[in-house]
Amino acid sequence: MPSEQSLTERLLNGEPRAVARAITKVESGANGAAALMKEVFPKTGNALVIGITGSPGAGKSSLVDKLALFYRDRGERIGIICVDPSSPFSGGAILGDRIRMQTLGLDKNVFIRSMATRGNLGGLARATVDAVAILDAAGFEKIIVETVGVGQDEVEIVKTADVSVVVLVPGMGDDIQAIKAGIMEIGDVFVINKADREGVLRTEKELEALLSLAHRPDFWNSPIVKTVATENKGIEDLAKAIESYNDFQKTGESGLNRKQAIARWRLLELLRETLLVKTLKVNGASDRLEKLALEVAEKKRDPYSAVEDMLNSI
Amino acid sequence: MPSEQSLTERLLNGEPRAVARAITKVESGANGAAALMKEVFPKTGNALVIGITGSPGAGKSSLVDKLALFYRDRGERIGIICVDPSSPFSGGAILGDRIRMQTLGLDKNVFIRSMATRGNLGGLARATVDAVAILDAAGFEKIIVETVGVGQDEVEIVKTADVSVVVLVPGMGDDIQAIKAGIMEIGDVFVINKADREGVLRTEKELEALLSLAHRPDFWNSPIVKTVATENKGIEDLAKAIESYNDFQKTGESGLNRKQAIARWRLLELLRETLLVKTLKVNGASDRLEKLALEVAEKKRDPYSAVEDMLNSI
Repeated sequence: MPSEQSLTERLLNGEPRAVARAITKVESGANGAAALMKEVFPKTGNALVIGITGSPGAGKSSLVDKLALFYRDRGERIGIICVDPSSPFSGGAILGDRIRMQTLGLDKNVFIRSMATRGNLGGLARATVDAVAILDAAGFEKIIVETVGVGQDEVEIVKTADVSVVVLVPGMGDDIQAIKAGIMEIGDVFVINKADREGVLRTEKELEALLSLAHRPDFWNSPIVKTVATENKGIEDLAKAIESYNDFQKTGESGLNRKQAIARWRLLELLRETLLVKTLKVNGASDRLEKLALEVAEKKRDPYSAVEDMLNSI
Repeated sequence: MPSEQSLTERLLNGEPRAVARAITKVESGANGAAALMKEVFPKTGNALVIGITGSPGAGKSSLVDKLALFYRDRGERIGIICVDPSSPFSGGAILGDRIRMQTLGLDKNVFIRSMATRGNLGGLARATVDAVAILDAAGFEKIIVETVGVGQDEVEIVKTADVSVVVLVPGMGDDIQAIKAGIMEIGDVFVINKADREGVLRTEKELEALLSLAHRPDFWNSPIVKTVATENKGIEDLAKAIESYNDFQKTGESGLNRKQAIARWRLLELLRETLLVKTLKVNGASDRLEKLALEVAEKKRDPYSAVEDMLNSI
């Protein structure tokens, strides 16, 4: 068995197997990850991290694959992290991985990994940013974090990227207003994918109108890029838009502000997880939790008293 | 100003203003909520809590509104909680509320409330289950929890309902496999909404095939209901399917198992939030966090050492 030291060394050399093992390690929990991440962290900061989110059905996977191929053709190494809401039991993540491995996975300059559902103790968001740091330290020049869905955790994760891309499609239906409202603040670049479909002009106009109302603290005007990912159209424009926000960010104070906000969020996530793990590790705490859960289920006790009781007893 | 005591009394009498104030209280944080929730909890357990989730654009809002009207026409009081991923700043939740208030909100037997984005300290899921408990204690017979999106938090919240309903639409595009895989385990009832659209048969067949592969621990066969919410079609069938799972659940052991799993999750959420709040309340902890966040942002320190440092110093 290779020692801990050599895992870090091999990962810093960019060996895919070491990268995969390291990510598995950070997925399994913050405690196991700590020693590794302390070594990895100082080697990070060279990659451009791109977050891509949007509704299911927007064609994010195709877009990510085409963008990855575009970068690869420029001679870069690309890491892709898919944050997948599927349960590890249902096989969703694995299935998705396998399909994509057929087109991209045989290329050793492209590393693809799905991060599965968080467990009871949370930590998906923390594990995802750790995985990004590992890829960064391993020398991947571009790291794409793709989140399926528009949930809270997913939005938080995308916000940790250097550049956040929001993908829409023409005529998405009833909830488009709601989605747009929720993501206005996180999109540094907007993509209207499937731009060969009817209604693209209307979606573009609506989006422009919404963007004109938004007030970004950094005064950036988020560009709108039209793509047809399945036909490889608009991918270069997207890459340019991403680059332009990244350049913009480096000039002003907003870059450090953003990095500090991300760091604060990251510390809070890690603190939350660490506190819970430490508390449940106390002798008898897990049994106590089970007992209290049963009492709450049987309505013999309310959750607030139960938690107070638990904190007092340890 | 009415005292704390009278707020609880008024809420137990079902006064909408008291209900609204109580929900605002639990939204503001676990600490403020504790005293109130201890009084409320013993009065809960009478409502049927229905969780409804699905992709954006599936027409969940229309479906929820029509289902609520159906129950109201039977003489019941209905609470609706919308978990909305929109930021409180963008006005998404407020806009949605206003539109719906026009059709339902003037009816004093229907209470509608959006729960906005969680803050830095988390707690959206905890606040949502607390809000459900408040409506339950206030005598609402049916409580519908609607989540926009398919994210982790949203799925967790829907799982706390007595009956979870997953809404699909015909021909949802590329990501349908991924979505389906992720939600197979949480759907007690499946709805294919917009069932007057092309492709409904194919979606139904695909869904049946996926459901036949799923193994539920309680051996329940999740029914598939076809609806056209905008035309009020299929709503009674949906109500029957919801009722039938609720009846089924009461007979076996699975009911208590589910309640215990929900209680465990609830305790963990509350514990996580309480631990973080307590930690950050320690003198100087918030300043320390800011300082460490800046150091991490400047790459002078890794997040893991920073959190260790923070925990050691307090």
